[in-house]
Amino acid sequence: MSGLREECGVFGVYSKERYAIARTVYYGLFSLQHRGQESCGIVVNDDGVLSGYKDIGIVNDVFTNEVLDRQSDGKMAIGHVRYGTTGTSDRLNAQPIMVNHIKGSMALAHNGNLINSHELRSELELQGSIFQTTSDTEVIAYLITKERIKANSIEDAINFAMHRIKGAYSLVIMSPTKLIAARDEQGFRPLCYGIKEDGTYIVASESCALDSVSAKFVRDIEPGEIVVFDSEGVRTIRDHCNKKEKALCIFEYIYFARPDSVLDGVSVHAARVRAGRCLAQDYPVEADVVVGVPDSGLDAAIGYSMESGIPYGIGFIKNKYIGRTFIAPSQKAREDRVRIKLNVVKETIKGKRVILVDDSIVRGTTCARIVSLLKEAGAKEVHMRVSAPPFLNPCYYGTDIDSRENLIAVNHEIEEIREMTDVESLGYMKIDRLPELLGDKKVMGFCNACFSGNYPTKTPVKVDKYKFEKRISER
Amino acid sequence: MSGLREECGVFGVYSKERYAIARTVYYGLFSLQHRGQESCGIVVNDDGVLSGYKDIGIVNDVFTNEVLDRQSDGKMAIGHVRYGTTGTSDRLNAQPIMVNHIKGSMALAHNGNLINSHELRSELELQGSIFQTTSDTEVIAYLITKERIKANSIEDAINFAMHRIKGAYSLVIMSPTKLIAARDEQGFRPLCYGIKEDGTYIVASESCALDSVSAKFVRDIEPGEIVVFDSEGVRTIRDHCNKKEKALCIFEYIYFARPDSVLDGVSVHAARVRAGRCLAQDYPVEADVVVGVPDSGLDAAIGYSMESGIPYGIGFIKNKYIGRTFIAPSQKAREDRVRIKLNVVKETIKGKRVILVDDSIVRGTTCARIVSLLKEAGAKEVHMRVSAPPFLNPCYYGTDIDSRENLIAVNHEIEEIREMTDVESLGYMKIDRLPELLGDKKVMGFCNACFSGNYPTKTPVKVDKYKFEKRISER
Amino acid sequence: MSGLREECGVFGVYSKERYAIARTVYYGLFSLQHRGQESCGIVVNDDGVLSGYKDIGIVNDVFTNEVLDRQSDGKMAIGHVRYGTTGTSDRLNAQPIMVNHIKGSMALAHNGNLINSHELRSELELQGSIFQTTSDTEVIAYLITKERIKANSIEDAINFAMHRIKGAYSLVIMSPTKLIAARDEQGFRPLCYGIKEDGTYIVASESCALDSVSAKFVRDIEPGEIVVFDSEGVRTIRDHCNKKEKALCIFEYIYFARPDSVLDGVSVHAARVRAGRCLAQDYPVEADVVVGVPDSGLDAAIGYSMESGIPYGIGFIKNKYIGRTFIAPSQKAREDRVRIKLNVVKETIKGKRVILVDDSIVRGTTCARIVSLLKEAGAKEVHMRVSAPPFLNPCYYGTDIDSRENLIAVNHEIEEIREMTDVESLGYMKIDRLPELLGDKKVMGFCNACFSGNYPTKTPVKVDKYKFEKRISER
Amino acid sequence: MSGLREECGVFGVYSKERYAIARTVYYGLFSLQHRGQESCGIVVNDDGVLSGYKDIGIVNDVFTNEVLDRQSDGKMAIGHVRYGTTGTSDRLNAQPIMVNHIKGSMALAHNGNLINSHELRSELELQGSIFQTTSDTEVIAYLITKERIKANSIEDAINFAMHRIKGAYSLVIMSPTKLIAARDEQGFRPLCYGIKEDGTYIVASESCALDSVSAKFVRDIEPGEIVVFDSEGVRTIRDHCNKKEKALCIFEYIYFARPDSVLDGVSVHAARVRAGRCLAQDYPVEADVVVGVPDSGLDAAIGYSMESGIPYGIGFIKNKYIGRTFIAPSQKAREDRVRIKLNVVKETIKGKRVILVDDSIVRGTTCARIVSLLKEAGAKEVHMRVSAPPFLNPCYYGTDIDSRENLIAVNHEIEEIREMTDVESLGYMKIDRLPELLGDKKVMGFCNACFSGNYPTKTPVKVDKYKFEKRISER
Repeated sequence: MSGLREECGVFGVYSKERYAIARTVYYGLFSLQHRGQESCGIVVNDDGVLSGYKDIGIVNDVFTNEVLDRQSDGKMAIGHVRYGTTGTSDRLNAQPIMVNHIKGSMALAHNGNLINSHELRSELELQGSIFQTTSDTEVIAYLITKERIKANSIEDAINFAMHRIKGAYSLVIMSPTKLIAARDEQGFRPLCYGIKEDGTYIVASESCALDSVSAKFVRDIEPGEIVVFDSEGVRTIRDHCNKKEKALCIFEYIYFARPDSVLDGVSVHAARVRAGRCLAQDYPVEADVVVGVPDSGLDAAIGYSMESGIPYGIGFIKNKYIGRTFIAPSQKAREDRVRIKLNVVKETIKGKRVILVDDSIVRGTTCARIVSLLKEAGAKEVHMRVSAPPFLNPCYYGTDIDSRENLIAVNHEIEEIREMTDVESLGYMKIDRLPELLGDKKVMGFCNACFSGNYPTKTPVKVDKYKFEKRISER
Repeated sequence: MSGLREECGVFGVYSKERYAIARTVYYGLFSLQHRGQESCGIVVNDDGVLSGYKDIGIVNDVFTNEVLDRQSDGKMAIGHVRYGTTGTSDRLNAQPIMVNHIKGSMALAHNGNLINSHELRSELELQGSIFQTTSDTEVIAYLITKERIKANSIEDAINFAMHRIKGAYSLVIMSPTKLIAARDEQGFRPLCYGIKEDGTYIVASESCALDSVSAKFVRDIEPGEIVVFDSEGVRTIRDHCNKKEKALCIFEYIYFARPDSVLDGVSVHAARVRAGRCLAQDYPVEADVVVGVPDSGLDAAIGYSMESGIPYGIGFIKNKYIGRTFIAPSQKAREDRVRIKLNVVKETIKGKRVILVDDSIVRGTTCARIVSLLKEAGAKEVHMRVSAPPFLNPCYYGTDIDSRENLIAVNHEIEEIREMTDVESLGYMKIDRLPELLGDKKVMGFCNACFSGNYPTKTPVKVDKYKFEKRISER
Repeated sequence: MSGLREECGVFGVYSKERYAIARTVYYGLFSLQHRGQESCGIVVNDDGVLSGYKDIGIVNDVFTNEVLDRQSDGKMAIGHVRYGTTGTSDRLNAQPIMVNHIKGSMALAHNGNLINSHELRSELELQGSIFQTTSDTEVIAYLITKERIKANSIEDAINFAMHRIKGAYSLVIMSPTKLIAARDEQGFRPLCYGIKEDGTYIVASESCALDSVSAKFVRDIEPGEIVVFDSEGVRTIRDHCNKKEKALCIFEYIYFARPDSVLDGVSVHAARVRAGRCLAQDYPVEADVVVGVPDSGLDAAIGYSMESGIPYGIGFIKNKYIGRTFIAPSQKAREDRVRIKLNVVKETIKGKRVILVDDSIVRGTTCARIVSLLKEAGAKEVHMRVSAPPFLNPCYYGTDIDSRENLIAVNHEIEEIREMTDVESLGYMKIDRLPELLGDKKVMGFCNACFSGNYPTKTPVKVDKYKFEKRISER
Repeated sequence: MSGLREECGVFGVYSKERYAIARTVYYGLFSLQHRGQESCGIVVNDDGVLSGYKDIGIVNDVFTNEVLDRQSDGKMAIGHVRYGTTGTSDRLNAQPIMVNHIKGSMALAHNGNLINSHELRSELELQGSIFQTTSDTEVIAYLITKERIKANSIEDAINFAMHRIKGAYSLVIMSPTKLIAARDEQGFRPLCYGIKEDGTYIVASESCALDSVSAKFVRDIEPGEIVVFDSEGVRTIRDHCNKKEKALCIFEYIYFARPDSVLDGVSVHAARVRAGRCLAQDYPVEADVVVGVPDSGLDAAIGYSMESGIPYGIGFIKNKYIGRTFIAPSQKAREDRVRIKLNVVKETIKGKRVILVDDSIVRGTTCARIVSLLKEAGAKEVHMRVSAPPFLNPCYYGTDIDSRENLIAVNHEIEEIREMTDVESLGYMKIDRLPELLGDKKVMGFCNACFSGNYPTKTPVKVDKYKFEKRISER
């Protein structure tokens, strides 16, 4: 029930045969839709000619049968789903972006956020570069292009460019003849690849997207690695590997990723179950039933139930027909937005002491509303357990946890939050137990800066990234 | 995961104040969307002027903000969601229907299916009546209108008409000044009403729709009852009550209704949990985890887990972004339709003996595909448990269980089905335990004809209801 | 530039072969689009199965390729374009209407207006009939159906029904096996048929629609005639012919019909040219150029020029890209609606004494705006000539000249109108010269009631036809 | 009836007040729609923040009320209509383009075609520039940006850049604080500006667009001139003026421009009338009526009629409801595409010797079809007169006369063309009389290269401009 949003999901296909390849990307993007619902796009490579389609909206709305039919056949294609800022610039900022340069065409799909894009952009602008979007992806495209002039290959150009770009990025890049996957040297965002029975390679942000197109998981792209798929097979460039400590976003496990994905060797579902177990150990309470807030609280609720022995119950039914175009009630309409989306299964709740598990608390308002629904349905007590620690710091690596004002935990003590949400008890995941979410793989590094403030990179100078989006009178 | 479809859901509002009442119906229809996704409609009564909008599509697509803004304000409104046969006649058959007659206007929304509509229609046609749809609802409208000429009130006309119409119907009818709910004397389909804090009355097929608009459940409409909402309050006509044994569709509990609804005093969720318990008692097996097929198998899986003590697990992630316009893969696209919609959480399944719980098996093909996904994910054994008995007979009361050829259980022994679905064991709900689903309320009668062949009415002569939809050359 | 609107256009096809016949109707409706732009529809008869599609909008918007592809193939089809009242009831009132009755199915498309529909409707309602629209067409459908019970054939039923229905109607009716055209005994609205090279019959409101589908004009349907097209060829029933004096609407020639149509033997273009000549004879003036208001004033301007010897000029360019969805400027937008649609060709006008010819003046506002554009462009004098006499009376026969308040000529003397429109002189067509528009065929009767008040039928009791569209509080 | 297409129309507004300025552009683009129907766009400058919307489609379809409402208010805005190549790249190539660079943002709208874009593009690519479109406009944007780094102002940067770009261009450029209009030094494409009563400046490709928004024409932008509109008023830079002979496209007068426009001091309508007079002088013939092919042949037909004394007649009615989405008949549909769009007014034609005037003959097929319609309607003779000379050479300056294979006059003698179109006589405008079209202003230079082969610039090396649109296997 977190309102937080990931910035993107990427997907790529390299097939030996020319076919209606956009459809494979379409299915892949479906399974990455949770990573971005603002816009989406597909670029197909038809023997060197790149052409594509992107628009604002979810995959299901943008890619109608008619639109898919208009896409070229090809052997390669990449796709992207994006969460972006609202406003008129959205459509321009949709990805993948396609650029033509001296050595040919290139398409890029990017998940993440650079911390030095402002410097890079200024430098490029001073050389006369023009930018048609406000996204980092165009900066990356320029850097690769500049290197490409002198480099022997696109992969070399990417390798060189990676010396300049700092921060979080998982990239899928397509040249006229190659599909290339690259991940920043700290591995903030996930990226993996798989293979289908017919030898088609699939690159995706999460393994669930491999499953959706019947591809077998091969392995994660390592932090700093560049993997090249072309007519000669798969090659890897590891010049940037093992240079820095890994920093995969822990919140990918807690909320962003789909539970059926396995990221860097760790099952997201299992990580959430372990989070639930930790909560049960740290905050035991006598109760009758454990319920999760759908959909992201369910796995941790199972974990809490297993560890505590308190039965797991279905506490809510989420209306699955409410789409993106759902018209939320205005004040005038006098209906209740949360109630329309989420209804309590009274049978489970009435007269019970309820343990309510959710992935996180951001502003606290939705949480309070859910608790009030439970009480109205007859819950005797509600004990809230949250599988993320309190958010206290902005994220610079590709999520929208960027405004401290809206984070309830920044301004309120836990006891205050407990009172505001009207629960009998409230327990947040403890920061020092976060490594346990990764199970036996816990040696692996991760980023928990949004909770701890320990940033794995230098923090970016707070710059006015969107200078082109401010009115003169406001500057 | 049953592919069976309910025919309809109905909703009505009677408010003391004039306001943008179509929006309340809009939210109500959302929570009844599972009862029909083919078309939907809303009719508003603005001080006697009925006007409305209906179209093919789900509520979210048909009722855009623009369309809602164009609806009149009013004090009364009714709505309908419908599953219908495909083809060109759909739009015509969308409901509610509006008719003008000698004493005024009337709008009707209908859930159910008459068993004597052919006779009634022929009789009316012989008197010169014309029909613009092929639906039973128009027949009901005629019968009420004919009675209305001589009756003192619309409710009397309905009362008289109910002597003629046989079969299953839950009706919401709106005259210039009244909102009326009526339910057939055997109560095949559910119907209830509630009240909001400001005194607004809500009528709905299921109680979950009352919840969605913050109305308090008052009571179910009784079989045979007519309830009138007007400026004088609520009145009831019970001339048709207690004349026949009750026959609420048991499959409403097993599959059709939403788990958060309470139908005729019985929680749907609880009924499903009890079904799971029965399955655990009748078909015990040693296993490691119990998983339900989302969404309709989850509640029974919980029941099986509780009764057996085997842990409940999250076995599948269902892609929640796949809308009605989802483009299913063609053969050419070489992707797997089930896999795109449903992915296994391998962590839960791998190396485990799995008990798989679903609501029903219709054709068996989807079921077999799901089992194969589990085995592919590493399940050591799969034990299938089905919370409905085998379908063996057509339904005449408003669902589409009407073609025996497609029902796997008609042509195959259970052992054959077990082999076809490749499970280690298969257990269907036993017919004689169905009364237990209703818990303490089990004295209440219900219809289980689709399983047992015991029809609570005389079965209709199989007639060519759709004579107007057959080409001359085919007659 | 008249803002007056015809109520409808009808079209029918009877082919010997089954094919994608809806497309032929589609092209036919295009050429009748000027007769109604509010809604349109097509019904196809596929060996007895009638199915169709209709919606609000012009032909080009409603019938997309996708919609046309979904229409059945067939040997017969009918279509309709309609101008209707605004509001929510539009979609319901779209035509053709399809009804099922005791002897089969029937589809009807109707152009005109009954003068006794209220009596007929009341009578039918007293017998228990229900109406789903507020249109006369449903009344006609009922009357035919009632007769059909006892009649030997659909054409006999129509013949009998025509004894009851009074007023203006040109009908195209389709039964499972026949296409039937019928025209009221006074012939208020045009109707004709033609034949294509392959023997396909076409029925249409105007001959221009025959041209558009390459059908050769055969003849006009006579007032009172019923023409039947079926597997045996063409038959005619003339029981209602020659019973009353003919009364074809003279305004069809002046404005409604397309200039390339020939109605009842008279070319519309020629009639308008003759109107222009009459104006030149009756209102001569010294001037430099004659210009017509596009598109309906051009033909009469040619006539005026021919008769007077004053050169014809192109005075205006009409923006042809402004579609139905054109967003007219609000006050806020500070642009000029008339100017966006119509621009003066200054070269033609500057420094000239201009004779401006238009078909009619309804409210006078648009006319005044056009004159001011001419003066602004440098016209030294503007002499207005109008090819219709002043509107003084409501029309009961299927046009929207029904509100006397808005007719400028009802409340103002011609001299006043001249001043209001700021022209140097103003000449209206003289009523007694109207017969000359028909040329040698002038013996033929026509209706000029809107100008003269001489109604060819008894005038209908002014009844509340739309009682179902009034709020209770307003009754 | 020429099928030739202009590449673009541009429009700009500079207001003193902030308001819903996109609407003014919307109305302006309507009147320029004839210059490009493939895509359109508007960019608004809201105190320095540029934001916009563009899409494939005509103005009326792209800019719905909803889309217009979403546009920012502002004091400046520019717009563009475009004809472009078909295919997937269209949307990307839609204009105006917006770029961000070191000194701010910039939006450009461009009409014309550069002859050295290939060289410029290669040069830029070698410096590491990336291109997201295949249009010349992006090249211009880069050149201006490169100059902008060192220039004092945007207008200086444009001035410098104009030394590099060769060929045809009429530009409207918007910076955060300025609106700038610039025209190539030979003035291939028209450009003018006007002022509204409230002091708002309007820049447009044609004067008809000034009229549509009630702006008074001030003057044409001179070839080579840069005009700057900002808070200090209007300034001009004339460094590039009077350096080369003027070369306004003569076909703007014959076909492209709207007759109500005045380009470089010459009325388009008057030019066409003069063309008709020339034809009458050069190709006199005895005949009964002169008719023009709508809409572009009408003015010259008037001229022919005036000069010859043979009466002008309305020969055709063009169906005005056929929009861009019109579904042209397939072979299967057995209808006639030309006939659906254009119907003969038989009254005018039957039994007559007809002089048929059209603007040009490109492929000859449509022309032949029109002649056959006339003959079918009873024309005794048809004498074709064409107000353009035969097309013999490709155009490099922004129209699509670029493929010699399709030009009928390249491969056929005039007598052959006469036979192919089945006319009794055929007369083309003589090249040496083209100067007369401009009347007294004939001293002014113009480009007639498509007829004469006399190119006013060096002709571009034929380069593969669209290398990124070719498949590898085809290279």
